[in-house]
Amino acid sequence: MISIRSTDSQSAARTGVMHLPHGDVEVPAFMPVGTNGTVKAMLHKAIADIGYPLILGNTYHLYLRPGTEVIEKFGSLHQFSGWKGNILTDSGGFQVFSLSPFRKITEEGVSFRSHIDGSRHKFTPETAVDVQTILGSDIQMQLDVCTPPGISHKEALHALELTTAWAKRAKARRAEKEESYQGNLFGIVQGNFFEDLRKRSAEELAELDLPGYAIGGLSVGEEASVFRDFLHYTAPLLPADKPKYVMGIGTPDYMLEAMEAGIDVFDCVYPSRVARNGTCFTPEGMLNLKNARFKDDQRPLQEGCPCPACTTYSRSYMRHLFVAREILGPMLATHHNLQFLYSMMADARQAIQEKRFASFKTEFLERFRGKV
Amino acid sequence: MISIRSTDSQSAARTGVMHLPHGDVEVPAFMPVGTNGTVKAMLHKAIADIGYPLILGNTYHLYLRPGTEVIEKFGSLHQFSGWKGNILTDSGGFQVFSLSPFRKITEEGVSFRSHIDGSRHKFTPETAVDVQTILGSDIQMQLDVCTPPGISHKEALHALELTTAWAKRAKARRAEKEESYQGNLFGIVQGNFFEDLRKRSAEELAELDLPGYAIGGLSVGEEASVFRDFLHYTAPLLPADKPKYVMGIGTPDYMLEAMEAGIDVFDCVYPSRVARNGTCFTPEGMLNLKNARFKDDQRPLQEGCPCPACTTYSRSYMRHLFVAREILGPMLATHHNLQFLYSMMADARQAIQEKRFASFKTEFLERFRGKV
Repeated sequence: MISIRSTDSQSAARTGVMHLPHGDVEVPAFMPVGTNGTVKAMLHKAIADIGYPLILGNTYHLYLRPGTEVIEKFGSLHQFSGWKGNILTDSGGFQVFSLSPFRKITEEGVSFRSHIDGSRHKFTPETAVDVQTILGSDIQMQLDVCTPPGISHKEALHALELTTAWAKRAKARRAEKEESYQGNLFGIVQGNFFEDLRKRSAEELAELDLPGYAIGGLSVGEEASVFRDFLHYTAPLLPADKPKYVMGIGTPDYMLEAMEAGIDVFDCVYPSRVARNGTCFTPEGMLNLKNARFKDDQRPLQEGCPCPACTTYSRSYMRHLFVAREILGPMLATHHNLQFLYSMMADARQAIQEKRFASFKTEFLERFRGKV
Repeated sequence: MISIRSTDSQSAARTGVMHLPHGDVEVPAFMPVGTNGTVKAMLHKAIADIGYPLILGNTYHLYLRPGTEVIEKFGSLHQFSGWKGNILTDSGGFQVFSLSPFRKITEEGVSFRSHIDGSRHKFTPETAVDVQTILGSDIQMQLDVCTPPGISHKEALHALELTTAWAKRAKARRAEKEESYQGNLFGIVQGNFFEDLRKRSAEELAELDLPGYAIGGLSVGEEASVFRDFLHYTAPLLPADKPKYVMGIGTPDYMLEAMEAGIDVFDCVYPSRVARNGTCFTPEGMLNLKNARFKDDQRPLQEGCPCPACTTYSRSYMRHLFVAREILGPMLATHHNLQFLYSMMADARQAIQEKRFASFKTEFLERFRGKV
């Protein structure tokens, strides 16, 4: 399902095309996060107009609200939400760990309570596939066991073994849906911060010959150097002819690091979350629009950016919107940040194609960190 | 500045064109309210795309934040906010009465404290003109004294006399700006709920030969029948060859009543405010999207409506957005309500032109009130 187009000369960075049921996706690609089937403060048409062919939805949230039975009546999350492009959904497991006020993992799956109304629910590897199949996810993720940094080797091993076992069960359930559903089931490499376990997890999952793989359990609070080490250690362990996905990566430095390691897809709420607080990406670094120095700054947020914020409004006006707590502020800032990352990805793909990714990365980061 | 095009056969309803510095405005027209220089949750381009040629800004808010000195650097509120159409601004007086925690009226003007930071300020008839001239308002309103229902004849008379005196001073100040500024100063008829005072106010203001007139002090909490009586009593007292404006009118029944009385322009926050709470206009009446009966309703909010909400999304999805408190909900509902009123105005203008306004009004209200 992925055609690799070019590879960088000095790193594992690569470009290619993922062929998905709702159209092709040029990689490396950033995915905007649409937790509830909406990328916050964005019309779906505006996301498509930027050029994004793939967004993310959160199974945990959609399963609880509006509920799988509602989306099933529409046929898919695409039809329910009006999004015509591709959708990747997580399995719901990560949100259970981070949001549910109660959860219990057994071999069978994970029991939890809703953070909305306290009601009891259970995800198993099979029901995670069932729910994501109802969502019509173009890429769905297996249920996995994500672990925080600092646990023992023994605990990490147990989580890994469960994750592999769940991947097998997910694959079997996915196979039952061959006729009615076109989506791709991805496996998730775990192993915490132990090299031997990362290797074992990658090998066990590769044997299952799934259409793609994610590296889970990274960017979960570990030091940046640890993230980098384990990213570069784990990525080459995954099959080269399959898409590689790292979850929760949304800052330029982490994204460039991931691309350098040969990662094809990543997602993060960060770019849209900070936008709603008035923080925007520019080539010269992050800019907080609420800052008093923008009070009468007539320049656009970013010269040359094609987004509605930059083509229509000034920094001064955008500051005014945030100070007056006007909804248009988050709308414009979100659009800008998503445009920025889309353009950055396009530039990065070109640099990889022209085998100059290393200098692209260096120059981008120097400018972004204010060193030029 | 207004060309009357047609008049209804059975009522005072009329159509025409107001010629303003930023383009022509077909009347009767509803004006969306953009208090802080932004119609909440709407891109300015989207407002223009619906077809609106005229929006309202609030002088009190803009004067306090971002401050006149900021907007002056941009040249006008249009340039500051990126809105290319016309802008009508109120004088700030009404907001002083409704928002300021402290205010004192003297012959000179009104002193008040900011509701934002408690700072002390003063509006006089002259400074109200000055501020609105800096805003570059296509229509600016004189500073007036608005009174609530229930006051004595003597109190109402005093407010009226002050309003007339302030109109004269505003006109004089406006005259000083003849060369640099193209906007139109409107007078405001007061007189509370006393027919003799309304008549006197209208006559005194008509003598000033201002380019347009508003009926102030209506829709301020009085009974609907009192509103109707004073609207129909006062409107004919205004010069027929000048635009007539009623402030704070935003429900279909009040708007139809105003059109029937020959009113050309009105504004209200109501349509956008209720939208943000999930309440939408439809030809069959108001619809609260949060209602459980829409949980899996696959129909659009309003069949045939050209707005993004109705062409892309279902009632079920919009309900989901409001239940999940997603920003896209208010965005879509606001757009819909503004589209609805724009279409309603276009239909009303056509009915007046075809001299069938009475039946249009009756049929519209019967359907809207669920009687068909």
